[in-house]
Amino acid sequence: MISIILVNPQMVENIGMTARAMLNCGLTDLRIVNPRDPWPLEDWLRERLYAAASRAEAPLNGARIFTSVQEAIADLHYVAATTAQARDMVKRWVTPKQAAGEMRARVQAGQKAGVLFGPERTGLFNEDITLASDIICIPMNPDYSSLNLAQAVLVVAYEWYQAQTNPQPDILRMGKSYPAPRADLHNFLTRFEDELQTAGFFTSEEMKPTMVQNLRNALQRAELTEQEVRTLHGAVKALVQGPKRRLNSQ
Amino acid sequence: MISIILVNPQMVENIGMTARAMLNCGLTDLRIVNPRDPWPLEDWLRERLYAAASRAEAPLNGARIFTSVQEAIADLHYVAATTAQARDMVKRWVTPKQAAGEMRARVQAGQKAGVLFGPERTGLFNEDITLASDIICIPMNPDYSSLNLAQAVLVVAYEWYQAQTNPQPDILRMGKSYPAPRADLHNFLTRFEDELQTAGFFTSEEMKPTMVQNLRNALQRAELTEQEVRTLHGAVKALVQGPKRRLNSQ
Repeated sequence: MISIILVNPQMVENIGMTARAMLNCGLTDLRIVNPRDPWPLEDWLRERLYAAASRAEAPLNGARIFTSVQEAIADLHYVAATTAQARDMVKRWVTPKQAAGEMRARVQAGQKAGVLFGPERTGLFNEDITLASDIICIPMNPDYSSLNLAQAVLVVAYEWYQAQTNPQPDILRMGKSYPAPRADLHNFLTRFEDELQTAGFFTSEEMKPTMVQNLRNALQRAELTEQEVRTLHGAVKALVQGPKRRLNSQ
Repeated sequence: MISIILVNPQMVENIGMTARAMLNCGLTDLRIVNPRDPWPLEDWLRERLYAAASRAEAPLNGARIFTSVQEAIADLHYVAATTAQARDMVKRWVTPKQAAGEMRARVQAGQKAGVLFGPERTGLFNEDITLASDIICIPMNPDYSSLNLAQAVLVVAYEWYQAQTNPQPDILRMGKSYPAPRADLHNFLTRFEDELQTAGFFTSEEMKPTMVQNLRNALQRAELTEQEVRTLHGAVKALVQGPKRRLNSQ
């Protein structure tokens, strides 16, 4: 099973219809980051939520609420972000079908995978997309590519469901290693960026967000294992301490 | 392009979201048979319709309203019916993907194709399915297979859109012939059944609907050309007149 992660969803109706689309395709793990209407929902909103779900209650009853995307994906080994429009980011672009096949292969190999969906009007912000390994781009009529949120979830979930009968594509062979859980990777990235900041790497505050984004995208692409993340922590530590301080600390 | 035909849709919101799903996939020909709310819609319903469509107005502005499925499909050469559950009918079952590929091939060969979607609560009635050549069964979680109407349209439209880049499957090679327009086929079937009725073929009124349904399904599967339908008309006429009357009429 994969996780569906709604980031800042606005309308409870869309959350309800998302639950329906998920259960249609056998998915139940729904995670919600900062919904517009605070949870637990007021009664009248809760009624609208469940009405839109049309008895697809399992994903709603088990839904978990988070206050940041990072928290919501902390335990996952693989995260894809959905977008309708091209973004200026160096990431691998996959179709829903391709993503579904690859996620099946990952899940069978014991990994946990999830897909991020942005809010209705804006889609995902770049900083959320940066947290993902790949971008799922849903190919649509270029003259009208604005998919309803639950429709976007359905396309991904439908391909996931179809993929159980399709032959599975190759994924990176890792032996007994897993990609690092996203929380481990995020810890490293935060630390790395802090150290770079301290070291005066970011010469201009204006350029910093773009530089951070590029670094994060580059390291996401590497599919680092837990061991590799530990090694990188060590490397950064070593660089920061420098030869003199390392000698001193011995 | 293929036509989307909604049979007895109940909620204007679902019609609006259908328009959105259609335009996402480049489709604009929307036909509606006996909607619950009569068209032209009252202002307040019209507002809800267009709000649900979220600026996907082309399919709505050009939508045509019919009073029977037969009328709505009269000009089409190929019609598929969608169902969520198995029906006890001898028809070819195809996946949305298979149907999409075949409809692409038909449209490129100059044929007009369309897909029937039933009302929200019940799905299509058997008598409507009988009018179709094939059944599109959307493979879903057997424990929760109830798809929202607009979601069902999206799956079919999405596969149609994807199919433009997929290799196309074989369809029946017909040289320069087309399958008979559905109106021609229906004329023949009606006449055939009338003649059978007159001839006392239907020994019980109770069994008649099932027998008619089986006949219609069998002849749908034949993909009769216009010429073949004309020939069958002649055959029925000849059988009815019998050898004596034919001699007399000469």
